[in-house]
Amino acid sequence: MAEKKIGKQTVKFEKCPYVIGAAAVGGEKEGAGPMREWFDSVLEDDMNGEKTWEKAESKMLKDAMLMALKKSGREKKEIDLVLSGDLLNQIMSSSFMARDLHLPFLGLYGACSTMTESLLLGSMLTDGGFAHNIIVGASSHFCTAERQFRMPLEHGNQRPPSAQWTATAAGAMVVSEKKADLSKTGAVDGGQNPAQLCNIRVDCGTIGKIIDAGVKDANQMGSAMAPAAVDTILNHLEDTGRTLSYYDLVLTGDLGYIGKDIASDLLIDAGLPEKDVRQRYDDCGTMMYDRKAQDVHGGGSGCGCSASVFSGSIIRRLRSGQLKRVLLLSTGAMLSTISPFQGESIPGIAHAVVLEACDGQIKF
Amino acid sequence: MAEKKIGKQTVKFEKCPYVIGAAAVGGEKEGAGPMREWFDSVLEDDMNGEKTWEKAESKMLKDAMLMALKKSGREKKEIDLVLSGDLLNQIMSSSFMARDLHLPFLGLYGACSTMTESLLLGSMLTDGGFAHNIIVGASSHFCTAERQFRMPLEHGNQRPPSAQWTATAAGAMVVSEKKADLSKTGAVDGGQNPAQLCNIRVDCGTIGKIIDAGVKDANQMGSAMAPAAVDTILNHLEDTGRTLSYYDLVLTGDLGYIGKDIASDLLIDAGLPEKDVRQRYDDCGTMMYDRKAQDVHGGGSGCGCSASVFSGSIIRRLRSGQLKRVLLLSTGAMLSTISPFQGESIPGIAHAVVLEACDGQIKF
Repeated sequence: MAEKKIGKQTVKFEKCPYVIGAAAVGGEKEGAGPMREWFDSVLEDDMNGEKTWEKAESKMLKDAMLMALKKSGREKKEIDLVLSGDLLNQIMSSSFMARDLHLPFLGLYGACSTMTESLLLGSMLTDGGFAHNIIVGASSHFCTAERQFRMPLEHGNQRPPSAQWTATAAGAMVVSEKKADLSKTGAVDGGQNPAQLCNIRVDCGTIGKIIDAGVKDANQMGSAMAPAAVDTILNHLEDTGRTLSYYDLVLTGDLGYIGKDIASDLLIDAGLPEKDVRQRYDDCGTMMYDRKAQDVHGGGSGCGCSASVFSGSIIRRLRSGQLKRVLLLSTGAMLSTISPFQGESIPGIAHAVVLEACDGQIKF
Repeated sequence: MAEKKIGKQTVKFEKCPYVIGAAAVGGEKEGAGPMREWFDSVLEDDMNGEKTWEKAESKMLKDAMLMALKKSGREKKEIDLVLSGDLLNQIMSSSFMARDLHLPFLGLYGACSTMTESLLLGSMLTDGGFAHNIIVGASSHFCTAERQFRMPLEHGNQRPPSAQWTATAAGAMVVSEKKADLSKTGAVDGGQNPAQLCNIRVDCGTIGKIIDAGVKDANQMGSAMAPAAVDTILNHLEDTGRTLSYYDLVLTGDLGYIGKDIASDLLIDAGLPEKDVRQRYDDCGTMMYDRKAQDVHGGGSGCGCSASVFSGSIIRRLRSGQLKRVLLLSTGAMLSTISPFQGESIPGIAHAVVLEACDGQIKF
């Protein structure tokens, strides 16, 4: 067996896994933004036909998983495991989703880093031979997150300009040891000719460390998480011996406008070519909403932000060959609702996964 | 590569991993109970020298991990990954522990099923070749859990007889691709002759499904979780073709007195020999406290209950050869603090791991 651990924090996959299906669901506001064309479905309203926001989020996550499953061409009985998490206490959306799917389930908590945490774990378990097919995913909901982490919505409190807007969105992918059935993926993606579609392979991933930059303001999530994202990117490049220009796109999860600027500055300070940083680096939190028309202050955030951008836009652009190699990093702020009151600063974390478009001819 | 997925929910390891070090920490009350001889350390008081209960719990978890690391004979720099979770919102104990350890970290949430979730994931990632050494663990604290899930302690409310007592305890293990350095493990365990100690191998594991038996009373956790434990045990036996008598001990996490009785009945109803169930099956929640002298009503619970019993008593008894083969199942109730108010019943889950004492001569 080839060495799969490379460098300090990176794992390299031997022959699989493939992302054989993916789906993204957006909320009402998110569906009115720049990502609308990439969503598989958009909620008519954020209650999603349920009586509570929490149930609405859980249903949205389940729908994303079932749509990803459909596009994968696999049957539910072929799925060995579901890996998922969300922002809610006791990962309520994921637990109730898993109850309904009735499949083996491992719950994760990585705050907004959950999408790459689930994708990375799912890829390791598949490549390690422990599963043939795994569904991975994550979700968030503006109303459930506001209630839990900030203020009751009815309070109508004013948000500071640096505060980010938790996206109502979910994303899910099916990771498999075998390549995709491109005739099915294509059909649901909008009828492209399967011959023109690419397989998507998970090449490697980097597991993040907790980085705490000492930020104590919970309305400054971007600044709290940016150092963790930068740490993981730099460790990834060092472990793999690659440069930023190896990737068409390096995409962080939800640093937002402020965090993206900080991360860009830190990357340049660390010696990465400014041109590459400006051209190749972006952040899902800055892509989710129209900055002028949908003013959300600091940008988007929440597990569902990167989950839906990765599972929607990025997977489709890899599938069509528009993107060849991407480095995806969901970024999480592991603070608790209690920890700031106990004087603690905000611990950040970011896990990275590399996805590649491939025609199946790649040799390892 | 041999098939590692067997049956519907079980994974079988090819050649590793080994549990090369383990440590258990108990709280003041727990240290006065039947488990005291197996704890590596006992807190003098439940504040653990910190200013808040949450920080006390986080420190206790970190201490368990560092003691497990010491007994493993590995250096901190040889650890590739930490896998951990706890009961607190945003897994606060684990996140702050991981910040202090400054090692790659993946956060888990499986309620009280977290110890076997982390051990199973750690074993898969090690056997899959993605890590050389992984620290896994879980913790809980009576005071943090009561505040979060039930009533402020100052309220002094009366607990119903079926309510379980969240253990103040933590457990951690070091999972490795290589065998233990028994001279180090032995020394810290109390000076046994290394030649008389066994290696401990993770043989296989079974990933649980969410099972919801419709129980809505959060003071009836044992009845809510017992069906999930039984489902995983039965699936494990079916997947592996083993009988209950294959194991010296089958140990659930924290069903407590009521849940243990229900699980026993369900196992017998499912056709397992009553004699085997009575002789070989037990529950950590019934072992943690002295039922008469320390009346805790329904028995022990919390992630730390099974984590500390497994990492303390079970590992030492396997190490000494007193136990040969054990089936360990941490059991979790994936309810949220909000879900009962939304009319939801309690989803249960249980993951199983098989540990074997071995002399290193076993062939696969």
